[in-house]
Amino acid sequence: MDIATLIGFLVGLACVIVGVVADGGNFALFFNIPAVTIVVGGTIASTCIHFSAKQVLGVAAVMKKTMFCKLPAESDLIQKMVNYAAINRRDGALALERQVATAGDPFLVKAIRMVIDGQKEEAIEEQLALEIQYLQERHADGKKMLEFMGAGCPAFGMVGTLVGLVQMFSNMESPEKIGKGMAVALVCTFYGAFVANLFFIPLAGKLGMRSKGEVFLKQMLAEGILAIAAGESPTSVREVMQSFVSEHRRNDIKPSDNVRKAA
Amino acid sequence: MDIATLIGFLVGLACVIVGVVADGGNFALFFNIPAVTIVVGGTIASTCIHFSAKQVLGVAAVMKKTMFCKLPAESDLIQKMVNYAAINRRDGALALERQVATAGDPFLVKAIRMVIDGQKEEAIEEQLALEIQYLQERHADGKKMLEFMGAGCPAFGMVGTLVGLVQMFSNMESPEKIGKGMAVALVCTFYGAFVANLFFIPLAGKLGMRSKGEVFLKQMLAEGILAIAAGESPTSVREVMQSFVSEHRRNDIKPSDNVRKAA
Amino acid sequence: MDIATLIGFLVGLACVIVGVVADGGNFALFFNIPAVTIVVGGTIASTCIHFSAKQVLGVAAVMKKTMFCKLPAESDLIQKMVNYAAINRRDGALALERQVATAGDPFLVKAIRMVIDGQKEEAIEEQLALEIQYLQERHADGKKMLEFMGAGCPAFGMVGTLVGLVQMFSNMESPEKIGKGMAVALVCTFYGAFVANLFFIPLAGKLGMRSKGEVFLKQMLAEGILAIAAGESPTSVREVMQSFVSEHRRNDIKPSDNVRKAA
Amino acid sequence: MDIATLIGFLVGLACVIVGVVADGGNFALFFNIPAVTIVVGGTIASTCIHFSAKQVLGVAAVMKKTMFCKLPAESDLIQKMVNYAAINRRDGALALERQVATAGDPFLVKAIRMVIDGQKEEAIEEQLALEIQYLQERHADGKKMLEFMGAGCPAFGMVGTLVGLVQMFSNMESPEKIGKGMAVALVCTFYGAFVANLFFIPLAGKLGMRSKGEVFLKQMLAEGILAIAAGESPTSVREVMQSFVSEHRRNDIKPSDNVRKAA
Amino acid sequence: MDIATLIGFLVGLACVIVGVVADGGNFALFFNIPAVTIVVGGTIASTCIHFSAKQVLGVAAVMKKTMFCKLPAESDLIQKMVNYAAINRRDGALALERQVATAGDPFLVKAIRMVIDGQKEEAIEEQLALEIQYLQERHADGKKMLEFMGAGCPAFGMVGTLVGLVQMFSNMESPEKIGKGMAVALVCTFYGAFVANLFFIPLAGKLGMRSKGEVFLKQMLAEGILAIAAGESPTSVREVMQSFVSEHRRNDIKPSDNVRKAA
Repeated sequence: MDIATLIGFLVGLACVIVGVVADGGNFALFFNIPAVTIVVGGTIASTCIHFSAKQVLGVAAVMKKTMFCKLPAESDLIQKMVNYAAINRRDGALALERQVATAGDPFLVKAIRMVIDGQKEEAIEEQLALEIQYLQERHADGKKMLEFMGAGCPAFGMVGTLVGLVQMFSNMESPEKIGKGMAVALVCTFYGAFVANLFFIPLAGKLGMRSKGEVFLKQMLAEGILAIAAGESPTSVREVMQSFVSEHRRNDIKPSDNVRKAA
Repeated sequence: MDIATLIGFLVGLACVIVGVVADGGNFALFFNIPAVTIVVGGTIASTCIHFSAKQVLGVAAVMKKTMFCKLPAESDLIQKMVNYAAINRRDGALALERQVATAGDPFLVKAIRMVIDGQKEEAIEEQLALEIQYLQERHADGKKMLEFMGAGCPAFGMVGTLVGLVQMFSNMESPEKIGKGMAVALVCTFYGAFVANLFFIPLAGKLGMRSKGEVFLKQMLAEGILAIAAGESPTSVREVMQSFVSEHRRNDIKPSDNVRKAA
Repeated sequence: MDIATLIGFLVGLACVIVGVVADGGNFALFFNIPAVTIVVGGTIASTCIHFSAKQVLGVAAVMKKTMFCKLPAESDLIQKMVNYAAINRRDGALALERQVATAGDPFLVKAIRMVIDGQKEEAIEEQLALEIQYLQERHADGKKMLEFMGAGCPAFGMVGTLVGLVQMFSNMESPEKIGKGMAVALVCTFYGAFVANLFFIPLAGKLGMRSKGEVFLKQMLAEGILAIAAGESPTSVREVMQSFVSEHRRNDIKPSDNVRKAA
Repeated sequence: MDIATLIGFLVGLACVIVGVVADGGNFALFFNIPAVTIVVGGTIASTCIHFSAKQVLGVAAVMKKTMFCKLPAESDLIQKMVNYAAINRRDGALALERQVATAGDPFLVKAIRMVIDGQKEEAIEEQLALEIQYLQERHADGKKMLEFMGAGCPAFGMVGTLVGLVQMFSNMESPEKIGKGMAVALVCTFYGAFVANLFFIPLAGKLGMRSKGEVFLKQMLAEGILAIAAGESPTSVREVMQSFVSEHRRNDIKPSDNVRKAA
Repeated sequence: MDIATLIGFLVGLACVIVGVVADGGNFALFFNIPAVTIVVGGTIASTCIHFSAKQVLGVAAVMKKTMFCKLPAESDLIQKMVNYAAINRRDGALALERQVATAGDPFLVKAIRMVIDGQKEEAIEEQLALEIQYLQERHADGKKMLEFMGAGCPAFGMVGTLVGLVQMFSNMESPEKIGKGMAVALVCTFYGAFVANLFFIPLAGKLGMRSKGEVFLKQMLAEGILAIAAGESPTSVREVMQSFVSEHRRNDIKPSDNVRKAA
């Protein structure tokens, strides 16, 4: 998922560069600081008014994660949990302590900590469900914000173009000057349309897709953790987690092979 | 359904060609590689950002199927299942093995295999319901993607036109050159509007219509398979399947005729 | 309802003709075969892609019916059913056979036939409910298609205008020729806006309104037929049907008067 | 509510007049009969196609009522009902006959008549609930129609402008004539935007707000009428009705004062 | 929240000023009283037609509060309620009388008054729930109105531009005059787009976000008040209120520390 997003941006950018080269290749026209200021500044300003500063900063983190982090494979996560179950069975919950350091995912760390602390299954279940709900809300807020920005960008592009047109029309001396004014004014509209359609709008969609996938993985993990907390065997932990995975994908995992490695 | 879709594309294309001929017939103006690059490339790039690369490739297969494959007639499917029921009754489930090779539809092959394997009715029902649900989800994803592309196309058409206009306005030497620049710039808008309205938007609608039809046929097949698995007679298999078909269409099938052929 | 629709079309057309006359009255400009080809042809082509050819032909029938057929008055239908009830009571169900020929409405014909055949009340009720459901679905499909066409028309108007503009700009010799080119190009936009707003969009709305009215009448008829099938008296048939009609409209019908005519 | 609506129209009109005066004050340009014909005529024509002629006339009555009639104050209505309850208790239901003449509101007249006729409480309740439902449906239809007109107005403004532009471009002799043609053509767009945004769109909203308020008052009245029909005392009628009024507004009414006047 | 909103406005304004300076810096063009009259006056006029004058004035108060008032921190509110609980336990409900003067928030004042008056818990609960519901409705109305204004602003911007264009085109003497006319006309569109996108649209969103936050705080307060009315200890008041606060944020409050200060 990570690389596809980046490649998408680069391909989209390359297509526009091809268009610029084909029409004369005057790239300097498209580097216009005041136009960037109006479109990007205006969009960020209106987003700060709608959302809180904290949320605006939060979405940057979410976007970075969406663009650069790949979701782990289901089979890897299941294998990880099967390993934990084996350790738990063999050496007791306290032996999981060493695994926490390498777990990576804060959700998983928190879940394992609760198992080590010997919390009740109901408490763990409730807490993890709450965490998943917070995750969904953060994603939904991020998506809403990206959609708001995707709508604001073209609007501020138009605002910038109108600023340019008003000044150009009030001062029409030579056709050449008119043309230059028009070109500068239209760059704002270009920025608005380009950034919204290649960045904010598809990224809002991607966040929605990724949210689904991540929530699914977290729910699968929660099932596994609960089975471990109940002291179930590695084999039954695998079975519980696989009941979350569709029949289609089950074939990708070879149970006998993995259980042996975990045991 | 298949041919109607193709004819629709050809008629739409022909109408625009008539328009080009009537206005002077300069077709060369409308073959503009940079414009195609921006509109098609930009649309695909933003779709790759929103969806995963796997989904983008998947939709191509779905589109091909929608455009070139005709849904089988209900009466043919019912007749097929009645034949299978007769074979099952006469020669036992194992005799269906030879039919699998000619069944064609992977859904039907999978269903018959489960009957041959002697799986329980509940297991078959659950499994087929799951398959139908996956089918619906794949169709819904495909429709969403085509709609996203139908919205992205005109947007990147505008992006391309703005690229052309900015360069044209910055370099207005002669009226003729201005005209040429405008013409080239507007071709992008033309591509965006044309492709979206003759291709992506109606195809998204068609996928929705076809999804309904295909799900209906699959549900009818599932009813038939379950009846066969229960060892019912060809006549009662037909009856079970026809209860899925509306009263309107029932008249098209002549029961006595078909049962005789099946027996 | 029928005549109001036709008058609406004529008034809308007359208003635009007034506008043409006031601006110079050059009607020839607005008869442009290539423009009609692109706008109407493109709209029909994209509709054929979205819907099946069968549905496209079906909507023509629905549109004709919506524009030229008036819904019968409730009181007339109630009176008709009261007459049938009287005949049924006096001469038996078979005596209704002669009424079928003059019933006109296929729904009513089918319903009476079932009464004559002595089918069970439950079977008749189920069958008529199915017929009403099919009617609603046909209307809903028709409305969806008209709305799709109302959205496609302006889009193909723009496509046609862009075809004209691209060719005009690429060949700017004299101001007069530019003007002529612009005029021809804009006729497409005019067609798209005019046809969509005076034809497809309000007709989609009308179909929705009419569907409600027709379904109401059919439900009222179904109530009457069921009462007749149960062998109830003309008076109680009238009462059953009137329970479907709001208190507001009940005053329009004079029960004693009608019953006497029916008896 | 009545006067605010009128003032809104006048202020909106005044603002545009200020704009016209500031730009040169050539008012004659904005009185253009053909433009009015296309925009208003086209909007009405398409509305007649969508809705029935009866509904179009009905909405005029609803609009007049919305603009010129003020909703009565809650406290006045409660006081009225308390008075009726006192009369009913003191002189019997028949003594209410004289009050009917001065009741004004047809809903109230109908309700009192039912009390005088000695109808059962259940019958009165059902009948009044039906009346309120009809009122809501009429309002909802009116709102839908005004929204349809608010969308049709700018569309026919564009149709009119295109009619003007096509003729102007086909006959470009002098720059001055072009300018005049553009001015005339744009007046249609102006009409469409102005009428939709100052008239149909806010009026549709107002009808929605007013519908809520009127339904609330009618429900409060129905509660009071039912209490009177049950022969309750003026004090308990007031209490029943006030349970419909929010705690916020209750302070506006001084119970002791009013009961004394009513007794 | 307060300062972020103001900073957002200032940043947005600054960005546009940068754009003006970069394109020539003729600020006088953008101070155009008639344009302001049409855009702002028209928007307010249409809003007065849709909503009542009372609601329009109410939204001004809501906007002021949204822009300048910061929501109190949860921990501060919990601490306040814990203090009240301690006073109530130690000195009785009447001792809370002195706290009312410094409570500030009318919702809290009203709630404490009810505790002092010794009203029943059920009555207090019902009353506070009603107050919270009114708050939500006021916020929802305000949001709806701001969204209506955000849609009206660009529409009246277009109306103003059309007024300018019609007059300009009817009087085309010199290219310079045409330019000046265009500039003046486009200022209206600029106002509409700028005010809607930097003011009304994000402010409507902010009101929605703030409404959620404020309702949450009020519900937390209501829980605390009910616990105090039940005579519970400061510690259990804190616990009840914290059950409303997510696990994430609970760590910010140090229970032992606060309880000591409150005792």
